[in-house]
Amino acid sequence: MTPADLAERVRQVDDADLARVDAWWRANNYLTVGQIYLQANPLLHEPLRPEHIKPRLLGHWGTSPGLSFLYAHVSRLIRITGQQAIYLAGPGHGGPALVAAGWLEGTYSEIYPRVGRDLEGMGRLFRQFSAPGGIPSHVSVTTPGSIHEGGELGYVLVHAFGAVMDNPDLLALAVVGDGEAETGPLEGAWKGISFLNPARDGAVLPVLHLNGAKISGPTVLGRKSPEEVRSLLSGHGYDVIEVEGSDLPGMHYGFAGALATAWASIKRIQEGARSGEWDGSRPRWPMIVLRTPKGWTGPHEVDGVPVEGTFRAHQVPLSGVRDNPEHLALLEQWMRSYRPEELFADGQPNSDVLAANPSGDLRMSASPHANGGLLTRDLDLPDFRDYAIDVPAPAGARAESTRKLGELMRDIYTRNPDRFRLFCPDETNSNRLGAVFEASDRAWAEEVLPSDVSLSRDGRVMEVLSEHNCHGWLEGYNLTGRHGLFATYEAFAMVSASQTIQHSKWLEEANHLSWRAAVPSLNVLLTSTAWRNDHNGFSHQGPGLIQTVLTQRGSVSRIYLPPDANCLLSVADHCFRSRSYVNLIVIDKQPQLQYLTIDEAIEHATRGASIWDWAGNDDGSVDPDVVLACAGDVVTMETVAAASILREKLPHFRVRVVNVIDLMTLPRRKDHPHGMEGTFFRELFTDHVDVVFAFHGYPGAIHQVVHGRPDADRFHVRGFIEEGTTTTPFDMVVKNKASRYHLVIDALNNAKRTPPGASDLKAWCEAQLEKHSAYVVEHLEDMPEVRDWVLPARDVAPY
Amino acid sequence: MTPADLAERVRQVDDADLARVDAWWRANNYLTVGQIYLQANPLLHEPLRPEHIKPRLLGHWGTSPGLSFLYAHVSRLIRITGQQAIYLAGPGHGGPALVAAGWLEGTYSEIYPRVGRDLEGMGRLFRQFSAPGGIPSHVSVTTPGSIHEGGELGYVLVHAFGAVMDNPDLLALAVVGDGEAETGPLEGAWKGISFLNPARDGAVLPVLHLNGAKISGPTVLGRKSPEEVRSLLSGHGYDVIEVEGSDLPGMHYGFAGALATAWASIKRIQEGARSGEWDGSRPRWPMIVLRTPKGWTGPHEVDGVPVEGTFRAHQVPLSGVRDNPEHLALLEQWMRSYRPEELFADGQPNSDVLAANPSGDLRMSASPHANGGLLTRDLDLPDFRDYAIDVPAPAGARAESTRKLGELMRDIYTRNPDRFRLFCPDETNSNRLGAVFEASDRAWAEEVLPSDVSLSRDGRVMEVLSEHNCHGWLEGYNLTGRHGLFATYEAFAMVSASQTIQHSKWLEEANHLSWRAAVPSLNVLLTSTAWRNDHNGFSHQGPGLIQTVLTQRGSVSRIYLPPDANCLLSVADHCFRSRSYVNLIVIDKQPQLQYLTIDEAIEHATRGASIWDWAGNDDGSVDPDVVLACAGDVVTMETVAAASILREKLPHFRVRVVNVIDLMTLPRRKDHPHGMEGTFFRELFTDHVDVVFAFHGYPGAIHQVVHGRPDADRFHVRGFIEEGTTTTPFDMVVKNKASRYHLVIDALNNAKRTPPGASDLKAWCEAQLEKHSAYVVEHLEDMPEVRDWVLPARDVAPY
Repeated sequence: MTPADLAERVRQVDDADLARVDAWWRANNYLTVGQIYLQANPLLHEPLRPEHIKPRLLGHWGTSPGLSFLYAHVSRLIRITGQQAIYLAGPGHGGPALVAAGWLEGTYSEIYPRVGRDLEGMGRLFRQFSAPGGIPSHVSVTTPGSIHEGGELGYVLVHAFGAVMDNPDLLALAVVGDGEAETGPLEGAWKGISFLNPARDGAVLPVLHLNGAKISGPTVLGRKSPEEVRSLLSGHGYDVIEVEGSDLPGMHYGFAGALATAWASIKRIQEGARSGEWDGSRPRWPMIVLRTPKGWTGPHEVDGVPVEGTFRAHQVPLSGVRDNPEHLALLEQWMRSYRPEELFADGQPNSDVLAANPSGDLRMSASPHANGGLLTRDLDLPDFRDYAIDVPAPAGARAESTRKLGELMRDIYTRNPDRFRLFCPDETNSNRLGAVFEASDRAWAEEVLPSDVSLSRDGRVMEVLSEHNCHGWLEGYNLTGRHGLFATYEAFAMVSASQTIQHSKWLEEANHLSWRAAVPSLNVLLTSTAWRNDHNGFSHQGPGLIQTVLTQRGSVSRIYLPPDANCLLSVADHCFRSRSYVNLIVIDKQPQLQYLTIDEAIEHATRGASIWDWAGNDDGSVDPDVVLACAGDVVTMETVAAASILREKLPHFRVRVVNVIDLMTLPRRKDHPHGMEGTFFRELFTDHVDVVFAFHGYPGAIHQVVHGRPDADRFHVRGFIEEGTTTTPFDMVVKNKASRYHLVIDALNNAKRTPPGASDLKAWCEAQLEKHSAYVVEHLEDMPEVRDWVLPARDVAPY
Repeated sequence: MTPADLAERVRQVDDADLARVDAWWRANNYLTVGQIYLQANPLLHEPLRPEHIKPRLLGHWGTSPGLSFLYAHVSRLIRITGQQAIYLAGPGHGGPALVAAGWLEGTYSEIYPRVGRDLEGMGRLFRQFSAPGGIPSHVSVTTPGSIHEGGELGYVLVHAFGAVMDNPDLLALAVVGDGEAETGPLEGAWKGISFLNPARDGAVLPVLHLNGAKISGPTVLGRKSPEEVRSLLSGHGYDVIEVEGSDLPGMHYGFAGALATAWASIKRIQEGARSGEWDGSRPRWPMIVLRTPKGWTGPHEVDGVPVEGTFRAHQVPLSGVRDNPEHLALLEQWMRSYRPEELFADGQPNSDVLAANPSGDLRMSASPHANGGLLTRDLDLPDFRDYAIDVPAPAGARAESTRKLGELMRDIYTRNPDRFRLFCPDETNSNRLGAVFEASDRAWAEEVLPSDVSLSRDGRVMEVLSEHNCHGWLEGYNLTGRHGLFATYEAFAMVSASQTIQHSKWLEEANHLSWRAAVPSLNVLLTSTAWRNDHNGFSHQGPGLIQTVLTQRGSVSRIYLPPDANCLLSVADHCFRSRSYVNLIVIDKQPQLQYLTIDEAIEHATRGASIWDWAGNDDGSVDPDVVLACAGDVVTMETVAAASILREKLPHFRVRVVNVIDLMTLPRRKDHPHGMEGTFFRELFTDHVDVVFAFHGYPGAIHQVVHGRPDADRFHVRGFIEEGTTTTPFDMVVKNKASRYHLVIDALNNAKRTPPGASDLKAWCEAQLEKHSAYVVEHLEDMPEVRDWVLPARDVAPY
């Protein structure tokens, strides 16, 4: 049958089909109400009594019947058409409906055998919901078929679009709640279709499910006229299909027709594009606006106040059921209105209900796309050593390190045309990653003009000026089993910090679920860093995301600060191979000194932290006078320079230089799996010599990671102390007291012994800083003319 | 003259007027190009030579001519109508145009006398731009007339809407760049008009300035058909006025007409509403879509490649000017195309240019609304003591603490009907702040139905399901001199963490500018905290914002963790009186123990941290055996309970309990102005006794704030270690190893002396935890039935 014929079958609902869909929906609604209220007597085999009711009523009824209505109809579409689909529930608290769906489809019991698809299992299903030891009231990691948590709102569309990229056969149903529709990230996510290629990508079918209210009031889109809503969504580029009402079975016919129209339209668009008939213009993808009453089929009125269709249906429409016989009676009446005795024989769904389920992997709760680790194929990675920079001697070369990563990713694009993407808020070139454009254009579904550069329908580099979109698309891409990297400005990485946290939490939870297969890691590259945003000024200077990632559980969070290009290559290769982590990589894009050969870099990156013998002069002695440690490119340069000053001026003062590339080697092993063993920690830092630590980020980060190490008080940290402005790179390190001169003074002040000449050297350093200050006053603040950007501070001599 | 007459005068541009506006615009464009390129020869009194060019070319030309075009026309509107207006420049890098505007208006030189409105000043104006020691390339805190930094994109509309709330005479011109228009927060901000009251609030006039490109590619709205853009914006509820083109003087006439139409429409809406003729429906507010070429009036083509109208005009259209004679010549030709000799006599703007400026405070660069501290009036605050909870004995009462804050704010609303608002993402009632609805409804400009509760046109409680909107509105409201509070879920405060950072940076920078008057503080209340989101589960558990605020400079950041209602009242009163801080207040909304009488609470909050004698038993001895410290409500309860166990079971073991309410008292004074003096620190914590510190947030926060205090290694911190799920409140503290039993064991393990009975007590504690574990397995994980939510752990006995 042609898609058009199939769509016609979807449109025409015969009586048997109607019976199946309606039975499934009633069953789901029954299970939803049961989850919210019951701890016993799940099938109402006896009259409902107070002790059957949970002691604390939690959960959200309002959105649930709409979600299950949609589920029932999409399942029917799947049964008729064989369409592969996943269901993303945007509304915050639709948990019970999706959990019930998984249970009705059998998936829940396959995954959690203790919650069987029988009477006992039903009881357990009810008790576990939103109860201690159980599951949350929103769709979560534990919900089979989900790649989207209904906790923090706003990301359902970005996850859906990420899921269908390079996934041509997948349909992602994305339900947008009208509360969620008010968030910025959601409003910014409709534009996903402006980046979608109908030939190569799958389709997102957004359903804006308007029931008019949030927790305690109306919603903007719920209260706007249909005309305005239509205008808005048409403006986003969609073909808007509307279904509104509450009458039954009328709504079944109406929605089946809308779904048929939408699906036929999707297939038409895709087939056109895939058969080469496409003129290249952006398709007008369908979407559905579904208006149903909040708490549809629930109590219409309680205590004389309307409930169905109002915000009062949001959570638990009947309260105090244990103590209020009237409410108890209403609840029983409500539950019996679904005719559970027809739906469940001894707790097992009857044949009508079961017949409404698609089979096997086509069940949305069982889709491998929603457990993307099952589908993950390793990247075909080139040998990163081939991109190495030649470093004749430490600090003997200078390069823009991220360019090398760009070249590596160019070839990853070429070798993996179906499973790797770069996501970047309009900064690919600016971040020196532009080599990727030799392998792929930017993705673009809006008009392409002849004057455009590296921009096409077929492009797969994702650029949109939205951290939320970039981050969320990559999450969706990862969770469906594909690989990528999100590259962004360091300061503005905080825009999506909340997404970083929520994704970390997802991965942490997934770690505990044996059925969830590991997925490619979320790789985040922070470039254009605080230290080198000297020209952009203070608003662009902020290494806050390190602080955020540090709070997350060690089982998923990784932070790398490669000091140069070869280290970056080694780190990137590792990250692209890893699974289920959040890998944060921090390195600037400006030309910078290169220290290590590729072989040295590999060894260094593998250890995570090493002594740089060439930079120090402690000759492997057990007790240097001081340890100069560093993590991060700019502060590494300052540290190496400080050591060089010390070596030159005080040759008998023993300095050890330790560079840290993997920040998570610093905590104790019990605090993070990368934490180095105590013996190795002592080899690097001793257990009593003072350490002057120059850190890329806020100093507090080091104080917290070394806590519990021997005599942690001996770590004296310099880092970004929130001092910035439009100035020179060197002035940035001076302002933040992390310059080479500060480090030398710190080293001398903290060393256990005061070497001869120390006070002269400190005086010399202070004089250098004075000179700098005078220079700043004369040449910067007074500005008779604009001078060179890099002040004449000593560069680092080659070794 | 009536507004309609005035609008007509705006629409009709006579020749003299045209000359003035065009001269001003040319002058501005000239100054913009000068800022990007020149370090000498500012007025081209001699032929341009390489040494006149800055050594490093930075800045952004692309958006600037459009911004100054708008500025010129709005200034003209102001001159004709006397309209009070401020200008918010959304595009990231339009700095030079706005700086030039302030200079042309004279404001710049009034504020920065060294940058005079003369030839020498012009030279300085050029040199300072985007140069070390100078100013950033985007609109920043240093720019007169700005309340909006053009750094992190997305917030121009929220700032504008916040600025006009309760500001009936103000017009906020908000220019949305088409790059910025792609961000989620911006897309989510158009809905501001759904909350605006034309009688009471001022007006926002959004100008979507489409020039089609970002840094290196097209933008979604720039490339969409005008029809789709119109449809989108109409859908948001606007009356869309379009102006497109590049021909001159045609565009002057065209835009003057559009502006006249928009202004007339605004006045009509406002007058209708204010004269009582309003039917209450949401007005169709005007907005303008302005399409001009990127880099309008700049080089059309360079090196055979088109520049004007393409992404190549984004930054510096002519590169390598010092070394490329052809580019140098092009630059000179470009600059001379503005006919500077006509515009500036000896560097001073000529009379035509000056005549284009509005006068005095009507100049947008001089508007007191953009320096809101000038207009700030103290809140009329009731005596917070009147809201005190009666606490007969420590832990002798239980209450929802935030309810008291709600009552306080109710009366603040009543007393300050024009300068106080609460902003809350649909959680006012849920956060127990609902008492405010006795004084004010929710603001709502969309349809109001009879069934709605506490919702009206005249409402001033701001509820929208968008942290970005809430936070940004409050920023705009604060920066224009008014007071408020943003109350949100703790975990989801990370959604707007980036805004918190950027606002902190703004306040930090403003601190250095004597002309910027202090503004009301940004007050953020985090409630629904990690510890008591036991039912919502892991995605709702995250105290990350504390970590973020900790990174900001001590001069602006404040973090309070009141343990009970009376402390909260005292803290809130302080915050409402304070200026130019970011005050973070963290307290849960659930019923909780109350410890202090109002007088005790005031004393405690004033000190910031105190010994709770009643909770410990060290009898003021210099050396307790251990200090139990705590910060945060839930962990305070655990600490008090732990001390109670210790006192009861080991009466001779000396325990001191210290409660910290102001987290910033812990750092050294040199690290934060609230840092307590060393002597006081020692009085509380001694300088050698081990401290078991139970903290509300991540333990690392305490490790970093106590760094540098005597023997900081002796602080053993328990806190949120990212362990969570759907469970009981008590299980949350157990999972995170911060329960009373953990604290007792920690106390005994770390005390300097081991008291007799210690090992028995530890064994007893371990047995309690075992029991808890067994309970969890039996009653939670196995769930034969749902039990009480609060496990039968000992509550705290009254003292």
